Amino acid sequence: MILTVTLNSALDVTYRVPRLRPHASHRVSAVGERPGGKGINVARVLAALGHPVTATGFAGGPAGSLVRELLAASPGVVDALVPCAGTTRRTVAVVDKASGDTTQFNEPGPLISAEEWAAFLARYADLLAGARAVALCGSLPPGVPVGAYAVLVRAARAAGVPVLLDTSGEALRRGVAARPEMIKPNAAELAELTGSRDPLPATRDARRRGAHAVVTSLGPDGLLAATAQGTWRAAPPRALSGNPTGAGDSAVAGLLSGLVEGLDWPDRLARAVALSAATVAAPAAGEFDPRTYEEVRGSVKVTAAQ
Amino acid sequence: MILTVTLNSALDVTYRVPRLRPHASHRVSAVGERPGGKGINVARVLAALGHPVTATGFAGGPAGSLVRELLAASPGVVDALVPCAGTTRRTVAVVDKASGDTTQFNEPGPLISAEEWAAFLARYADLLAGARAVALCGSLPPGVPVGAYAVLVRAARAAGVPVLLDTSGEALRRGVAARPEMIKPNAAELAELTGSRDPLPATRDARRRGAHAVVTSLGPDGLLAATAQGTWRAAPPRALSGNPTGAGDSAVAGLLSGLVEGLDWPDRLARAVALSAATVAAPAAGEFDPRTYEEVRGSVKVTAAQ
Repeated sequence: MILTVTLNSALDVTYRVPRLRPHASHRVSAVGERPGGKGINVARVLAALGHPVTATGFAGGPAGSLVRELLAASPGVVDALVPCAGTTRRTVAVVDKASGDTTQFNEPGPLISAEEWAAFLARYADLLAGARAVALCGSLPPGVPVGAYAVLVRAARAAGVPVLLDTSGEALRRGVAARPEMIKPNAAELAELTGSRDPLPATRDARRRGAHAVVTSLGPDGLLAATAQGTWRAAPPRALSGNPTGAGDSAVAGLLSGLVEGLDWPDRLARAVALSAATVAAPAAGEFDPRTYEEVRGSVKVTAAQ
Repeated sequence: MILTVTLNSALDVTYRVPRLRPHASHRVSAVGERPGGKGINVARVLAALGHPVTATGFAGGPAGSLVRELLAASPGVVDALVPCAGTTRRTVAVVDKASGDTTQFNEPGPLISAEEWAAFLARYADLLAGARAVALCGSLPPGVPVGAYAVLVRAARAAGVPVLLDTSGEALRRGVAARPEMIKPNAAELAELTGSRDPLPATRDARRRGAHAVVTSLGPDGLLAATAQGTWRAAPPRALSGNPTGAGDSAVAGLLSGLVEGLDWPDRLARAVALSAATVAAPAAGEFDPRTYEEVRGSVKVTAAQ
């Protein structure tokens, strides 16, 4: 199976309003609740691709219970979340019905105790034994040491399991130094890591910092990958309009499934770009539109970059 | 005791953000959770005034459990909420840290079944037997008949318990016709009920529709009351800046406690205006600043209106 780690899992709540007006009162017409956090989105996409997948991380409180209930109802994802005393955070996405634009509010997440972190590490070590690959995704909840991802990368490497890291800031900086198989920053995360806003040299710089491969997501322009086998750009055949939330998580699912299936880099990148595009075309994170996926997959343009 | 009814109780959540930017993503720095809904706010203010008070209505799901937990921790309010299978709604107030302005999102509330409504009616009848006054407050959750407040007003009248109704729209229109002791519309609710935007004639018109007394809240300008004993305006000595959320609920608590204590109308109105002002000066609905209350109470200007 593929293991995904979401230390700061979330209950993703969607509110639909006719139009967001700052400092006004809004009657919410529809409330949607979904299990969320980047690693859980990745797990749901991997399951939809037919890969056996296990999701771990923390879940606690009423929102954590609801995340687990909703996860149990979504087919193909094995729940290996570790209980915590604090309450799993909610994210609230307020969607303007007219424009489709989203205003997002993200709670900080539960405070994780040293005992809970130790319990997670033990569970993670057990799960690695059965994993073909692992994705470490998203922010760290309060209380988890900032070097957490470096510890998890090292444990995966020691177990011989390839690891993809998708996070930001100091957690990314420290995680990269532990030499993960792949990182997947977006342009802003890459600039923060390297100090450069020029994607190609910054992507190469990030590789020199320790990652075996760096796949930078360029939003609607696709992906830019620097690997030991070469450097590529992969671009969708056309711009897709829709909700970009979760597009990066779908790219991670594409890269990781491609790695496990032994695809070469151009094919992995084409799959990742097509899944991203199909997620933009779908209404919610952790979902993709299968027709768009099939349609785009064959026409992603992958070119060698100099 | 005084009984307050909150059919659509709520978990009031507060998010603090540096500044609300539509269509951007916000990291929420602080999350506050409080038991809410108008009748529960009224109950908390009555308890703070030293009145024995019981809160009923519906509570269900994880948010309902949290409302009950938080209510148990707030001194003096007896919890007589009736369980429902649906989930109690959340309200999310996003507060700009810089300006203090609030953007509010209100979920619609749980779907109440016919059996749950019948269970509530039985509980309400039991509770009326021990009540000296009752407040019926706020919106109706889905599934509750639109004539619900008329039914509850008639049951209170049959039990000889004076009833104050604080709601809006069709629920108010039907409730007024059942002849409650008091209603407390704001200017917009009064205009919707009577078709007139001129507060004095509209307040008198609302009395003719069935309420024994109509107390219209005029926001920072105070209250306007049309009663069998006379017509009064009651105004605070000065405008208070702050958060007006819950000011109307505090006015209801002032009116109801004054009724139970046998205060005459000018004293009831002075108390209600002072409690409203003290709520504007406090950080959260269901709370008031005791110093502002004592300070304003002696200097509310109550004048006979023609």
